[in-house]
Amino acid sequence: MGSRVSEVELPPLFCPLESAVHPRARQIEKRAEEWIARSGMCASEEELAWVVATHSTDFYARFVPDADDDRLLATALWVYWGFGFDDARCDRGPLSTRPAQFNALACQVQRACENDTAAGADRYIGALRDIVRLFRSLGTPAQVGRFAHAHRAWLSGVAWQVGNQALGRMPGLNDFLTMRLLSAGGEPTFAMLEIADGAEVPDRDLYRPAVRALKEMAILVAALDNDRHSLPKERARDQADQNIYTVLMHERDLTLQQAVEAANGLRDRVLLRFLRLHDRVRPTAGPELAAYLRGLRHGIRGNNEWGLRVPRYLSLGRWPDAMEDTALTWAQEPSDTRPGPLEGAPDVAWWWDDDLA
Amino acid sequence: MGSRVSEVELPPLFCPLESAVHPRARQIEKRAEEWIARSGMCASEEELAWVVATHSTDFYARFVPDADDDRLLATALWVYWGFGFDDARCDRGPLSTRPAQFNALACQVQRACENDTAAGADRYIGALRDIVRLFRSLGTPAQVGRFAHAHRAWLSGVAWQVGNQALGRMPGLNDFLTMRLLSAGGEPTFAMLEIADGAEVPDRDLYRPAVRALKEMAILVAALDNDRHSLPKERARDQADQNIYTVLMHERDLTLQQAVEAANGLRDRVLLRFLRLHDRVRPTAGPELAAYLRGLRHGIRGNNEWGLRVPRYLSLGRWPDAMEDTALTWAQEPSDTRPGPLEGAPDVAWWWDDDLA
Repeated sequence: MGSRVSEVELPPLFCPLESAVHPRARQIEKRAEEWIARSGMCASEEELAWVVATHSTDFYARFVPDADDDRLLATALWVYWGFGFDDARCDRGPLSTRPAQFNALACQVQRACENDTAAGADRYIGALRDIVRLFRSLGTPAQVGRFAHAHRAWLSGVAWQVGNQALGRMPGLNDFLTMRLLSAGGEPTFAMLEIADGAEVPDRDLYRPAVRALKEMAILVAALDNDRHSLPKERARDQADQNIYTVLMHERDLTLQQAVEAANGLRDRVLLRFLRLHDRVRPTAGPELAAYLRGLRHGIRGNNEWGLRVPRYLSLGRWPDAMEDTALTWAQEPSDTRPGPLEGAPDVAWWWDDDLA
Repeated sequence: MGSRVSEVELPPLFCPLESAVHPRARQIEKRAEEWIARSGMCASEEELAWVVATHSTDFYARFVPDADDDRLLATALWVYWGFGFDDARCDRGPLSTRPAQFNALACQVQRACENDTAAGADRYIGALRDIVRLFRSLGTPAQVGRFAHAHRAWLSGVAWQVGNQALGRMPGLNDFLTMRLLSAGGEPTFAMLEIADGAEVPDRDLYRPAVRALKEMAILVAALDNDRHSLPKERARDQADQNIYTVLMHERDLTLQQAVEAANGLRDRVLLRFLRLHDRVRPTAGPELAAYLRGLRHGIRGNNEWGLRVPRYLSLGRWPDAMEDTALTWAQEPSDTRPGPLEGAPDVAWWWDDDLA
């Protein structure tokens, strides 16, 4: 059974991956909420309420169910921060259509992520500096360095999105996928797996094309699922936002219902390729890479268990409602099993290369 | 003896670092010029003449005097590409004041640097894809991955610069230094040291704060030296470009002559800190880190031996003149020996931390 958004039927999601959640997620969430309230990054009670209502601890507790408490706390804090920054400075807010100003802020924010003495007037900068300081106390220099690279990649995608908003430009499918792989925030989110789990993946594994492809596919599936989770909100705001549905409607001249089905098929094809390639890479993986791959799988699944219930996407009023606790229904079969590469998306065609693994 | 630019006296540079150049630079330059001409990245004979006149092989041959010929060729090709892209798409050209369009292009370009099937209409994209293909055939996945991170960092700084140009905004000193560390292109230039030399620096060395500080200081010294080398050209174009002189004139209400002296002092203080920290790190460095540090030293020196003679900076006509072969005069002493951190630059204050090494 799917769910209805105004005039649209959303089919249930195909997601044959194990479910897990950190056993002390509730207690750690409480610590995280206190930290965020003290951090000074939110300008108002309302902004704070929405940041807290992202339930970022619940989110990341599903990515790393076995992490030490302090490691889950630190990495979850970045997720709250990322959602807060995204809402206040990227998706909405005065900079969302001002690329020149956004580019300057993005570099200042990034600097705060890379060194401890970086200055910056924006209220989000100090909080980020403190979070990355926690990362430095928990992770290795390489892990924190990789997170910083991933953070810059995210901001570059947001800068692209902000530029499109400023121009009123709807990207084509190929550009959109490339942009969404960056702007979705999946790069820093998955880069934190190593900091949360404590296992440093060797360079020869992390930069291996098959592993890069698995990471990118996990990011894209989660990003498209988030487009789906936030569709009710986007529809209520009635904006011409850049998401997989508006992109497909524009590029292929589809109705929203047709775009929902096309997006679901496209997403299932990427997930199937992820599963197939994963099963080729996993058997020979060392312990650190195995932990990383488990994090990718948990992330895809956990993102849905969180995203289908979180008030961030479901609450349409001025203040967020409580987190829902509804049972979830999943599709038993993928909606589209055609092998790739995807039509009209040459930039990600390499995910289907035979020699990847 | 210094040199005069219209009404300004430029003092000689202090640069007590060893000089070296690859013994087959001339032959490799010829191969590089043929490659660039065939690549299709230049739209006209004039554009090609200016790209060739960057003498990028001579430039990078000074960074890696012991590299294999094919490795010097591949890395030098990126330098030609970078200068060409910079001139056609960043510093000048229609995108130089259009951040929304630039952000989209920057992500498309970056994608071409990361995967072999990336598409893109811009004529610079295909050439970059081919150069990075050469990197993949010569370097390890980690080396090419690090280059890609560095490449994105560069583009993020250029995006900031383009945004400032669009707004007519002159940054303050702190922001300018942070921006210039990125926009100067030093990150990808130094990331190529590993590909040219063949030595993969271990993560634990590369992400070590002292080594990151040395890299950033080398980038800043070279970037400020390039501001100096290009001053004649900037003055001739009579533009309010963002460089260390216009920034200092604006922030401290200085004449150009005063700004030249202030910039020289600031640059010497960074170089002195580089030399001191280098001498603390070098004795315990393993062979790969030692090669990397040698590349940083050669880079600072070579950038000047090249930049003080190259038609890119010296030729003011429509077509470039031949490379000059003048003897160079160096300062015997630094112009400013005050210990840091630099006043008004909190973002780089950490370079002077006592516990770095």
